Amino acid sequence: MSVAREHLVTLLLRLADDHLILGHRLSEWCGHAPMLEEDLAMPNIALDLIGQARALFQYAGEVEGRGRSEDDLAYLRRERKYLNCLMVERPNGDFAHTMLRQFYFAAFMHAFWEKAAASSDETVAGIAAKAVKEVAYHIRHCGEWVIRLGDGTEESAARMQAAVEALAPYVDELFETDAVSEAVAQEGVAPSPASLRGAFEATVSRVFAEAMLEMPAAAWPQTGGRQGRHGEAMGYLLADLQHMQRTYPGAVW
Amino acid sequence: MSVAREHLVTLLLRLADDHLILGHRLSEWCGHAPMLEEDLAMPNIALDLIGQARALFQYAGEVEGRGRSEDDLAYLRRERKYLNCLMVERPNGDFAHTMLRQFYFAAFMHAFWEKAAASSDETVAGIAAKAVKEVAYHIRHCGEWVIRLGDGTEESAARMQAAVEALAPYVDELFETDAVSEAVAQEGVAPSPASLRGAFEATVSRVFAEAMLEMPAAAWPQTGGRQGRHGEAMGYLLADLQHMQRTYPGAVW
Repeated sequence: MSVAREHLVTLLLRLADDHLILGHRLSEWCGHAPMLEEDLAMPNIALDLIGQARALFQYAGEVEGRGRSEDDLAYLRRERKYLNCLMVERPNGDFAHTMLRQFYFAAFMHAFWEKAAASSDETVAGIAAKAVKEVAYHIRHCGEWVIRLGDGTEESAARMQAAVEALAPYVDELFETDAVSEAVAQEGVAPSPASLRGAFEATVSRVFAEAMLEMPAAAWPQTGGRQGRHGEAMGYLLADLQHMQRTYPGAVW
Repeated sequence: MSVAREHLVTLLLRLADDHLILGHRLSEWCGHAPMLEEDLAMPNIALDLIGQARALFQYAGEVEGRGRSEDDLAYLRRERKYLNCLMVERPNGDFAHTMLRQFYFAAFMHAFWEKAAASSDETVAGIAAKAVKEVAYHIRHCGEWVIRLGDGTEESAARMQAAVEALAPYVDELFETDAVSEAVAQEGVAPSPASLRGAFEATVSRVFAEAMLEMPAAAWPQTGGRQGRHGEAMGYLLADLQHMQRTYPGAVW
């Protein structure tokens, strides 16, 4: 495989894993949301994420050319082979925590897909054109919750502010660049993560201002996910995620 | 396999699964106990339980004669093949909940092993003679916590009483009898669970009296575990428990 193709596979797996893992986390709320409407909205967002993950895994398998299916890639890798950022694997915490995490991710991905829609890679451009509409809705939905809770009761504001502090160490990793991200950016396949910081911060400050939230205190950034180094929560998440495929190998619906 | 041997295997798997699953639950506290001493005591009790499970699985595999190892039996069955009672698979809840569950189980098993030490089956008698000493310590240790929390602060008493109510539906299943338990009892292999209720209740009332706890209100009994019908928590527990063996099939230390 050429170096360019290897880089493309890595890019696609990083993106796919972000969406798969966050989709799984969000699906854990199914049946446990604080109100019925949200019990429908969250699984719907989770389905968008899993749908985007599927498209990315399929393309990754195709580019890789080793015959791995979307299921192989989603369910049968070992922990160190998953390339998601650490933010998406963090435990759900309370509803405020989950909503802020989703808002952050949507704010980042919206900026990403907007630029990727003009990708030199047609498949990436196609995935981006579809995803950017879905993720615009995620920003709106989750942003409204950040505002409603942040500018809500004393209790809800305290919880949302606590979520801001708890997630602060995981924000920088979204913008991390390395040889892979720079190479695919140079080829016009996908934007450099670092170039998206401005758009991300514009979205976040707008919502934070309305939510009466303070920007988080400087936090020591946690990284490693893009190289497959994950936190304690990841192993338990994968045990749940992989259980069916590991127990019934090759099972299909 | 003769019917008598089949019954013996079922008896051994029911016992082994109780110990394996409760041992796993208890091990989840490792590193999270409310005080250092307890962070050592709980894993030690868990190790006793897993040790008893190993002896029981080994003997079950031997009697069954199908070449299944203790690891096969512990890690590679599907959910409906696990025969543990429902109490042991319940989520840990708070420390009071965990301690009361352990106390109940120890109170039951102490009565069981005391009689099983005179089993007509030499291996069962041997396992019982060792286990009865260990479980006497579990009763003392956990019983002391039931008393300390039940007769403690307003908060601790309320939590322990809440644990009493929460676990009430799962007590009756311990004493459930069926064709298997009656057959092994008639052959003098193991006591009938129903015959142990008096000893169990004597232990519990003594400790509850000292703990100032009220006996639970009548609760609709939950059963099914002995036939492999489990609650929602069981699938997640098995996903964690089986992860290593399913991910690295045949791995040994």
